[in-house]
Amino acid sequence: MNQTKQAKPILWSFYLSSCSWRVRIALNLKNIDYEYKAVDLLSKKGGDQFNKEFTKLNPKQEVPILLIDNIIFTQSIPIIEYLDSTRKTGLKLLSDDVVKRARSRIIAEVINSGIQPYQNANVIKRINKEMGKEKRIEWLNFYLNKGLTTVETLLKDTKGRYCVGDEISLADLCLVPQVFAAKRYKIDIGNFPLINSIILELDNVSAFHKALPENQPDFLKI
Amino acid sequence: MNQTKQAKPILWSFYLSSCSWRVRIALNLKNIDYEYKAVDLLSKKGGDQFNKEFTKLNPKQEVPILLIDNIIFTQSIPIIEYLDSTRKTGLKLLSDDVVKRARSRIIAEVINSGIQPYQNANVIKRINKEMGKEKRIEWLNFYLNKGLTTVETLLKDTKGRYCVGDEISLADLCLVPQVFAAKRYKIDIGNFPLINSIILELDNVSAFHKALPENQPDFLKI
Repeated sequence: MNQTKQAKPILWSFYLSSCSWRVRIALNLKNIDYEYKAVDLLSKKGGDQFNKEFTKLNPKQEVPILLIDNIIFTQSIPIIEYLDSTRKTGLKLLSDDVVKRARSRIIAEVINSGIQPYQNANVIKRINKEMGKEKRIEWLNFYLNKGLTTVETLLKDTKGRYCVGDEISLADLCLVPQVFAAKRYKIDIGNFPLINSIILELDNVSAFHKALPENQPDFLKI
Repeated sequence: MNQTKQAKPILWSFYLSSCSWRVRIALNLKNIDYEYKAVDLLSKKGGDQFNKEFTKLNPKQEVPILLIDNIIFTQSIPIIEYLDSTRKTGLKLLSDDVVKRARSRIIAEVINSGIQPYQNANVIKRINKEMGKEKRIEWLNFYLNKGLTTVETLLKDTKGRYCVGDEISLADLCLVPQVFAAKRYKIDIGNFPLINSIILELDNVSAFHKALPENQPDFLKI
Protein backbone atom coordinates (compact mmCIF):
# COMPACT_ATOMS: atom_id res chain seq x y z
CA MET A 1 0.00 0.00 0.00
CA ASN A 2 1.59 3.31 -0.94
CA GLN A 3 1.63 6.22 1.44
CA THR A 4 -0.03 8.87 -0.75
CA LYS A 5 -3.26 10.25 0.58
CA GLN A 6 -6.15 7.96 -0.16
CA ALA A 7 -9.12 9.73 -1.71
CA LYS A 8 -12.00 7.79 -0.22
CA PRO A 9 -12.31 4.77 2.04
CA ILE A 10 -13.38 1.63 0.19
CA LEU A 11 -15.83 -0.82 1.72
CA TRP A 12 -16.07 -4.37 0.40
CA SER A 13 -19.61 -5.36 1.28
CA PHE A 14 -22.51 -7.63 0.38
CA TYR A 15 -25.94 -6.12 0.73
CA LEU A 16 -27.26 -9.00 2.88
CA SER A 17 -24.16 -9.43 5.07
CA SER A 18 -25.05 -8.38 8.60
CA CYS A 19 -21.44 -7.60 9.51
CA SER A 20 -21.04 -5.34 6.43
CA TRP A 21 -24.32 -3.70 7.33
CA ARG A 22 -23.01 -2.75 10.80
CA VAL A 23 -20.06 -0.95 9.17
CA ARG A 24 -22.32 0.78 6.63
CA ILE A 25 -24.37 2.22 9.50
CA ALA A 26 -21.17 3.35 11.28
CA LEU A 27 -19.80 5.08 8.16
CA ASN A 28 -23.14 6.86 7.71
CA LEU A 29 -23.38 7.91 11.37
CA LYS A 30 -19.81 9.26 11.21
CA ASN A 31 -20.60 11.13 7.95
CA ILE A 32 -17.80 9.33 6.11
CA ASP A 33 -18.22 9.15 2.36
CA TYR A 34 -16.97 5.85 0.91
CA GLU A 35 -16.74 3.78 -2.23
CA TYR A 36 -18.84 0.59 -2.24
CA LYS A 37 -17.31 -2.57 -3.71
CA ALA A 38 -19.84 -5.37 -3.94
CA VAL A 39 -18.69 -8.92 -3.21
CA ASP A 40 -21.32 -11.42 -4.27
CA LEU A 41 -21.31 -14.03 -1.49
CA LEU A 42 -23.99 -16.01 -3.35
CA SER A 43 -22.58 -15.87 -6.90
CA LYS A 44 -23.19 -18.78 -9.24
CA LYS A 45 -19.51 -19.67 -8.99
CA GLY A 46 -20.14 -20.49 -5.33
CA GLY A 47 -19.29 -17.12 -3.82
CA ASP A 48 -16.85 -14.40 -4.96
CA GLN A 49 -15.30 -14.27 -1.49
CA PHE A 50 -13.43 -17.44 -2.46
CA ASN A 51 -11.67 -15.75 -5.43
CA LYS A 52 -7.89 -15.73 -5.27
CA GLU A 53 -7.73 -11.94 -5.32
CA PHE A 54 -10.30 -11.46 -2.58
CA THR A 55 -8.64 -14.11 -0.43
CA LYS A 56 -5.44 -12.06 -0.60
CA LEU A 57 -7.34 -9.15 0.93
CA ASN A 58 -8.97 -11.33 3.59
CA PRO A 59 -7.80 -14.92 4.08
CA LYS A 60 -10.95 -15.50 6.13
CA GLN A 61 -12.91 -14.95 2.88
CA GLU A 62 -15.51 -12.70 4.46
CA VAL A 63 -16.87 -9.20 4.17
CA PRO A 64 -16.64 -6.48 5.39
CA ILE A 65 -13.20 -5.17 4.53
CA LEU A 66 -12.48 -1.49 4.90
CA LEU A 67 -9.53 0.25 3.23
CA ILE A 68 -8.99 3.48 5.10
CA ASP A 69 -5.89 5.56 5.91
CA ASN A 70 -4.06 3.27 3.44
CA ILE A 71 -4.66 0.26 5.70
CA ILE A 72 -6.83 -2.80 5.14
CA PHE A 73 -9.04 -3.57 8.14
CA THR A 74 -11.24 -6.62 8.66
CA GLN A 75 -13.71 -7.60 11.43
CA SER A 76 -16.69 -5.30 11.87
CA ILE A 77 -16.33 -4.42 15.55
CA PRO A 78 -12.62 -3.46 15.38
CA ILE A 79 -13.43 -1.44 12.23
CA ILE A 80 -16.19 0.47 14.05
CA GLU A 81 -13.93 1.03 17.08
CA TYR A 82 -11.21 2.37 14.74
CA LEU A 83 -13.62 4.74 12.97
CA ASP A 84 -14.89 6.04 16.28
CA SER A 85 -11.35 6.59 17.66
CA THR A 86 -10.02 8.36 14.58
CA ARG A 87 -13.02 10.34 13.27
CA LYS A 88 -14.54 13.10 15.34
CA THR A 89 -17.28 13.77 12.76
CA GLY A 90 -20.87 12.65 13.27
CA LEU A 91 -22.06 10.61 16.27
CA LYS A 92 -19.84 9.13 18.94
CA LEU A 93 -20.46 5.37 18.81
CA LEU A 94 -18.72 4.41 22.06
CA SER A 95 -19.51 6.50 25.12
CA ASP A 96 -16.85 8.25 27.20
CA ASP A 97 -18.59 6.68 30.20
CA VAL A 98 -16.69 3.42 30.85
CA VAL A 99 -19.73 1.51 32.11
CA LYS A 100 -21.96 2.54 29.22
CA ARG A 101 -19.14 1.67 26.81
CA ALA A 102 -18.78 -1.78 28.39
CA ARG A 103 -22.54 -2.39 28.26
CA SER A 104 -22.65 -1.47 24.59
CA ARG A 105 -19.72 -3.77 23.82
CA ILE A 106 -21.32 -6.64 25.77
CA ILE A 107 -24.57 -6.46 23.78
CA ALA A 108 -22.54 -6.16 20.57
CA GLU A 109 -20.52 -9.27 21.47
CA VAL A 110 -23.54 -11.36 22.40
CA ILE A 111 -24.63 -10.75 18.81
CA ASN A 112 -21.20 -10.82 17.14
CA SER A 113 -19.75 -13.95 18.76
CA GLY A 114 -22.90 -15.46 20.26
CA ILE A 115 -25.41 -15.37 17.40
CA GLN A 116 -23.93 -14.35 14.05
CA PRO A 117 -21.38 -17.20 13.81
CA TYR A 118 -24.24 -19.70 13.97
CA GLN A 119 -26.30 -18.09 11.21
CA ASN A 120 -23.43 -17.29 8.87
CA ALA A 121 -24.35 -18.40 5.31
CA ASN A 122 -21.51 -20.93 5.05
CA VAL A 123 -22.37 -22.52 8.38
CA ILE A 124 -26.04 -22.81 7.51
CA LYS A 125 -25.13 -24.38 4.17
CA ARG A 126 -22.99 -26.96 5.97
CA ILE A 127 -25.65 -27.70 8.62
CA ASN A 128 -28.27 -28.09 5.91
CA LYS A 129 -26.10 -30.47 3.92
CA GLU A 130 -25.12 -32.62 6.88
CA MET A 131 -28.28 -32.55 9.02
CA GLY A 132 -31.12 -31.64 6.66
CA LYS A 133 -33.68 -28.88 6.66
CA GLU A 134 -35.52 -29.75 9.88
CA LYS A 135 -32.33 -29.79 11.98
CA ARG A 136 -31.17 -26.58 10.32
CA ILE A 137 -34.37 -24.86 11.48
CA GLU A 138 -33.89 -26.30 14.99
CA TRP A 139 -30.26 -25.05 15.00
CA LEU A 140 -31.22 -21.53 13.95
CA ASN A 141 -34.12 -21.35 16.41
CA PHE A 142 -31.89 -22.47 19.25
CA TYR A 143 -29.03 -20.01 18.72
CA LEU A 144 -31.18 -17.06 17.69
CA ASN A 145 -33.63 -17.43 20.57
CA LYS A 146 -30.88 -17.96 23.12
CA GLY A 147 -28.91 -14.95 21.91
CA LEU A 148 -31.92 -12.64 21.61
CA THR A 149 -33.18 -13.72 25.05
CA THR A 150 -29.78 -12.72 26.44
CA VAL A 151 -29.91 -9.35 24.70
CA GLU A 152 -33.49 -8.77 25.93
CA THR A 153 -32.39 -9.52 29.52
CA LEU A 154 -29.37 -7.20 29.27
CA LEU A 155 -31.61 -4.43 27.92
CA LYS A 156 -33.65 -4.43 31.16
CA ASP A 157 -30.63 -2.78 32.80
CA THR A 158 -29.34 -0.68 29.93
CA LYS A 159 -32.19 0.45 27.67
CA GLY A 160 -33.21 4.04 27.22
CA ARG A 161 -34.42 5.21 23.86
CA TYR A 162 -31.78 2.92 22.33
CA CYS A 163 -29.84 -0.15 23.57
CA VAL A 164 -27.73 1.77 26.11
CA GLY A 165 -29.40 4.92 27.32
CA ASP A 166 -30.59 7.60 24.94
CA GLU A 167 -27.58 7.67 22.62
CA ILE A 168 -27.11 5.42 19.63
CA SER A 169 -24.07 3.17 20.16
CA LEU A 170 -22.19 0.15 18.80
CA ALA A 171 -24.86 -2.18 20.26
CA ASP A 172 -27.57 -0.63 18.07
CA LEU A 173 -25.41 -1.07 14.97
CA CYS A 174 -25.27 -4.80 15.69
CA LEU A 175 -28.90 -5.17 16.76
CA VAL A 176 -30.60 -3.92 13.58
CA PRO A 177 -29.00 -6.37 11.10
CA GLN A 178 -29.40 -9.18 13.65
CA VAL A 179 -33.13 -8.61 13.99
CA PHE A 180 -33.48 -8.47 10.21
CA ALA A 181 -31.75 -11.87 9.97
CA ALA A 182 -33.90 -13.29 12.76
CA LYS A 183 -37.05 -12.25 10.89
CA ARG A 184 -35.77 -13.93 7.73
CA TYR A 185 -35.41 -17.08 9.82
CA LYS A 186 -39.02 -16.70 11.09
CA ILE A 187 -38.18 -15.79 14.68
CA ASP A 188 -41.07 -13.94 16.29
CA ILE A 189 -39.58 -10.62 17.42
CA GLY A 190 -42.82 -9.93 19.29
CA ASN A 191 -41.36 -12.19 22.00
CA PHE A 192 -38.68 -9.56 22.62
CA PRO A 193 -40.55 -6.32 23.40
CA LEU A 194 -37.52 -4.23 24.41
CA ILE A 195 -35.63 -5.21 21.27
CA ASN A 196 -38.72 -4.52 19.21
CA SER A 197 -39.20 -1.02 20.61
CA ILE A 198 -35.54 -0.11 19.90
CA ILE A 199 -35.85 -1.35 16.32
CA LEU A 200 -38.90 0.89 15.84
CA GLU A 201 -36.92 3.89 17.15
CA LEU A 202 -33.98 3.18 14.86
CA ASP A 203 -36.26 2.88 11.84
CA ASN A 204 -36.52 6.68 11.93
CA VAL A 205 -32.78 7.35 11.74
CA SER A 206 -31.60 8.16 8.21
CA ALA A 207 -28.10 6.65 8.67
CA PHE A 208 -29.78 3.32 9.42
CA HIS A 209 -32.20 3.68 6.54
CA LYS A 210 -29.38 4.38 4.06
CA ALA A 211 -27.58 1.22 5.23
CA LEU A 212 -30.51 -1.15 4.56
CA PRO A 213 -29.86 -4.03 2.13
CA GLU A 214 -32.45 -2.63 -0.31
CA ASN A 215 -30.54 0.65 -0.54
CA GLN A 216 -27.21 -0.91 -1.57
CA PRO A 217 -25.93 -0.90 -5.16
CA ASP A 218 -25.72 -4.72 -5.30
CA PHE A 219 -29.33 -5.25 -4.19
CA LEU A 220 -31.44 -6.97 -6.86
CA LYS A 221 -28.45 -7.66 -9.05
CA ILE A 222 -28.32 -11.11 -7.51
CA MET B 1 -26.26 -4.86 43.98
CA ASN B 2 -25.59 -2.53 46.90
CA GLN B 3 -23.28 0.44 46.54
CA THR B 4 -20.86 -0.31 49.40
CA LYS B 5 -17.29 -0.79 48.32
CA GLN B 6 -16.71 -4.29 47.04
CA ALA B 7 -13.69 -5.96 48.58
CA LYS B 8 -12.43 -8.04 45.69
CA PRO B 9 -13.60 -8.69 42.16
CA ILE B 10 -15.17 -12.13 41.70
CA LEU B 11 -14.53 -14.19 38.58
CA TRP B 12 -16.86 -17.05 37.68
CA SER B 13 -14.64 -19.35 35.65
CA PHE B 14 -14.08 -22.92 34.52
CA TYR B 15 -10.48 -24.02 34.30
CA LEU B 16 -10.82 -25.28 30.71
CA SER B 17 -12.95 -22.40 29.38
CA SER B 18 -10.83 -20.45 26.90
CA CYS B 19 -12.87 -17.26 27.38
CA SER B 20 -12.44 -17.42 31.17
CA TRP B 21 -8.74 -18.06 30.63
CA ARG B 22 -8.38 -14.81 28.63
CA VAL B 23 -9.82 -12.85 31.57
CA ARG B 24 -7.60 -14.68 34.07
CA ILE B 25 -4.54 -13.58 32.08
CA ALA B 26 -5.84 -10.00 31.96
CA LEU B 27 -6.47 -9.87 35.72
CA ASN B 28 -2.95 -11.20 36.31
CA LEU B 29 -1.30 -8.76 33.88
CA LYS B 30 -3.17 -5.87 35.52
CA ASN B 31 -2.13 -7.10 39.00
CA ILE B 32 -5.75 -7.36 40.13
CA ASP B 33 -6.37 -9.76 42.98
CA TYR B 34 -9.66 -11.61 42.64
CA GLU B 35 -11.83 -14.34 44.08
CA TYR B 36 -12.25 -17.44 41.91
CA LYS B 37 -15.69 -19.06 41.70
CA ALA B 38 -15.60 -22.33 39.82
CA VAL B 39 -18.53 -23.21 37.54
CA ASP B 40 -18.36 -26.83 36.47
CA LEU B 41 -19.39 -26.77 32.81
CA LEU B 42 -19.03 -30.55 32.66
CA SER B 43 -20.76 -31.52 35.91
CA LYS B 44 -22.65 -34.80 36.09
CA LYS B 45 -25.91 -32.87 36.22
CA GLY B 46 -25.16 -31.72 32.66
CA GLY B 47 -23.33 -28.48 33.45
CA ASP B 48 -23.70 -26.09 36.40
CA GLN B 49 -24.04 -23.14 34.00
CA PHE B 50 -27.63 -24.27 33.46
CA ASN B 51 -28.53 -23.84 37.17
CA LYS B 52 -31.32 -21.39 37.87
CA GLU B 53 -29.08 -19.18 40.00
CA PHE B 54 -26.27 -19.04 37.48
CA THR B 55 -28.72 -18.32 34.66
CA LYS B 56 -29.85 -15.25 36.62
CA LEU B 57 -26.27 -13.99 36.54
CA ASN B 58 -25.83 -14.78 32.85
CA PRO B 59 -28.85 -15.78 30.75
CA LYS B 60 -26.40 -16.96 28.11
CA GLN B 61 -25.30 -19.65 30.61
CA GLU B 62 -21.61 -19.16 29.98
CA VAL B 63 -18.46 -18.21 31.83
CA PRO B 64 -16.67 -15.88 32.37
CA ILE B 65 -18.60 -13.45 34.50
CA LEU B 66 -16.76 -10.73 36.38
CA LEU B 67 -18.26 -8.84 39.32
CA ILE B 68 -16.23 -5.67 39.69
CA ASP B 69 -17.08 -2.12 40.84
CA ASN B 70 -20.41 -3.61 41.98
CA ILE B 71 -21.36 -4.44 38.38
CA ILE B 72 -21.78 -7.82 36.70
CA PHE B 73 -19.95 -8.00 33.37
CA THR B 74 -20.09 -10.81 30.81
CA GLN B 75 -18.24 -11.38 27.49
CA SER B 76 -14.47 -11.72 27.75
CA ILE B 77 -13.40 -8.99 25.32
CA PRO B 78 -15.61 -6.25 26.78
CA ILE B 79 -14.43 -7.33 30.26
CA ILE B 80 -10.77 -6.99 29.22
CA GLU B 81 -11.46 -3.61 27.57
CA TYR B 82 -13.15 -2.44 30.79
CA LEU B 83 -10.28 -3.58 32.98
CA ASP B 84 -7.78 -1.84 30.73
CA SER B 85 -9.78 1.42 30.68
CA THR B 86 -10.35 1.57 34.42
CA ARG B 87 -7.14 0.10 35.91
CA LYS B 88 -3.83 1.81 35.40
CA THR B 89 -1.91 -0.91 37.26
CA GLY B 90 0.19 -3.51 35.44
CA LEU B 91 0.45 -3.77 31.66
CA LYS B 92 -1.56 -1.75 29.16
CA LEU B 93 -3.47 -4.33 27.10
CA LEU B 94 -4.67 -2.00 24.34
CA SER B 95 -2.11 0.35 22.81
CA ASP B 96 -2.55 4.12 22.65
CA ASP B 97 -1.56 3.76 18.98
CA VAL B 98 -4.88 3.49 17.10
CA VAL B 99 -3.53 1.21 14.37
CA LYS B 100 -1.85 -1.19 16.81
CA ARG B 101 -5.01 -1.22 18.89
CA ALA B 102 -7.12 -2.06 15.81
CA ARG B 103 -4.71 -4.82 14.77
CA SER B 104 -4.84 -6.38 18.21
CA ARG B 105 -8.65 -6.25 18.23
CA ILE B 106 -8.81 -7.80 14.74
CA ILE B 107 -6.70 -10.82 15.75
CA ALA B 108 -8.73 -11.12 18.96
CA GLU B 109 -11.99 -11.11 16.98
CA VAL B 110 -10.83 -13.67 14.42
CA ILE B 111 -10.42 -15.96 17.43
CA ASN B 112 -13.40 -14.76 19.49
CA SER B 113 -16.09 -14.73 16.78
CA GLY B 114 -14.33 -16.73 14.05
CA ILE B 115 -13.02 -19.80 15.88
CA GLN B 116 -14.23 -20.13 19.47
CA PRO B 117 -17.98 -20.26 18.67
CA TYR B 118 -17.36 -23.37 16.56
CA GLN B 119 -15.40 -25.26 19.21
CA ASN B 120 -17.57 -24.27 22.17
CA ALA B 121 -18.34 -27.42 24.27
CA ASN B 122 -22.11 -27.20 23.72
CA VAL B 123 -21.74 -26.81 19.96
CA ILE B 124 -19.36 -29.75 19.71
CA LYS B 125 -21.74 -31.88 21.76
CA ARG B 126 -24.56 -31.00 19.36
CA ILE B 127 -22.45 -31.64 16.25
CA ASN B 128 -21.32 -34.96 17.66
CA LYS B 129 -24.87 -36.03 18.45
CA GLU B 130 -26.30 -35.01 15.09
CA MET B 131 -23.43 -35.77 12.71
CA GLY B 132 -21.24 -38.33 14.48
CA LYS B 133 -17.57 -38.39 15.42
CA GLU B 134 -16.06 -38.26 11.94
CA LYS B 135 -18.02 -35.15 10.91
CA ARG B 136 -17.25 -33.54 14.26
CA ILE B 137 -13.53 -33.93 13.56
CA GLU B 138 -14.01 -32.54 10.04
CA TRP B 139 -15.95 -29.56 11.50
CA LEU B 140 -13.26 -28.76 14.06
CA ASN B 141 -10.45 -29.12 11.53
CA PHE B 142 -12.20 -26.82 9.10
CA TYR B 143 -12.92 -23.94 11.50
CA LEU B 144 -9.69 -24.19 13.47
CA ASN B 145 -7.46 -24.37 10.40
CA LYS B 146 -9.29 -21.56 8.64
CA GLY B 147 -9.15 -19.30 11.70
CA LEU B 148 -5.53 -20.05 12.54
CA THR B 149 -4.50 -19.56 8.89
CA THR B 150 -6.13 -16.13 9.04
CA VAL B 151 -4.30 -15.27 12.26
CA GLU B 152 -0.98 -16.50 10.81
CA THR B 153 -1.50 -14.29 7.73
CA LEU B 154 -2.37 -11.23 9.84
CA LEU B 155 0.75 -11.82 11.96
CA LYS B 156 2.97 -11.34 8.89
CA ASP B 157 2.12 -7.63 9.11
CA THR B 158 1.83 -7.21 12.86
CA LYS B 159 4.18 -9.58 14.70
CA GLY B 160 7.10 -8.45 16.79
CA ARG B 161 7.99 -10.39 19.87
CA TYR B 162 4.24 -10.85 20.45
CA CYS B 163 1.14 -10.67 18.20
CA VAL B 164 1.32 -6.92 17.64
CA GLY B 165 4.80 -5.53 18.00
CA ASP B 166 6.85 -6.06 21.12
CA GLU B 167 4.14 -5.41 23.69
CA ILE B 168 1.72 -7.99 25.00
CA SER B 169 -1.84 -7.07 24.03
CA LEU B 170 -5.43 -8.34 23.89
CA ALA B 171 -4.57 -10.50 20.87
CA ASP B 172 -2.05 -12.53 22.89
CA LEU B 173 -4.62 -13.11 25.64
CA CYS B 174 -6.90 -14.72 23.05
CA LEU B 175 -4.17 -16.61 21.20
CA VAL B 176 -2.82 -18.71 24.07
CA PRO B 177 -6.09 -20.43 25.10
CA GLN B 178 -6.99 -20.86 21.41
CA VAL B 179 -3.75 -22.69 20.64
CA PHE B 180 -4.22 -24.90 23.70
CA ALA B 181 -7.71 -25.84 22.43
CA ALA B 182 -6.36 -26.47 18.92
CA LYS B 183 -3.76 -28.87 20.31
CA ARG B 184 -6.46 -30.75 22.24
CA TYR B 185 -8.24 -31.14 18.92
CA LYS B 186 -5.05 -32.48 17.31
CA ILE B 187 -4.31 -29.50 15.08
CA ASP B 188 -0.62 -29.39 14.14
CA ILE B 189 0.57 -25.99 15.35
CA GLY B 190 3.84 -26.62 13.50
CA ASN B 191 1.93 -25.49 10.40
CA PHE B 192 1.69 -22.00 11.93
CA PRO B 193 5.29 -20.93 12.65
CA LEU B 194 4.54 -17.31 13.62
CA ILE B 195 1.83 -18.39 16.05
CA ASN B 196 4.14 -21.05 17.42
CA SER B 197 6.98 -18.63 18.10
CA ILE B 198 4.66 -16.23 19.95
CA ILE B 199 3.34 -19.06 22.11
CA LEU B 200 6.92 -19.97 23.06
CA GLU B 201 7.60 -16.34 24.05
CA LEU B 202 4.44 -16.15 26.16
CA ASP B 203 5.33 -19.39 27.96
CA ASN B 204 7.90 -17.36 29.88
CA VAL B 205 5.46 -14.77 31.21
CA SER B 206 4.31 -15.50 34.78
CA ALA B 207 0.85 -13.90 34.35
CA PHE B 208 0.19 -16.40 31.55
CA HIS B 209 1.61 -19.28 33.56
CA LYS B 210 -0.61 -18.49 36.55
CA ALA B 211 -3.69 -18.48 34.29
CA LEU B 212 -3.12 -22.00 32.91
CA PRO B 213 -5.94 -24.54 33.45
CA GLU B 214 -3.65 -26.69 35.63
CA ASN B 215 -3.09 -23.79 38.01
CA GLN B 216 -6.77 -23.15 38.72
CA PRO B 217 -8.50 -24.30 41.92
CA ASP B 218 -11.07 -26.39 39.99
CA PHE B 219 -8.46 -28.32 38.02
CA LEU B 220 -8.54 -32.06 38.80
CA LYS B 221 -11.69 -31.75 40.84
CA ILE B 222 -13.58 -32.76 37.71
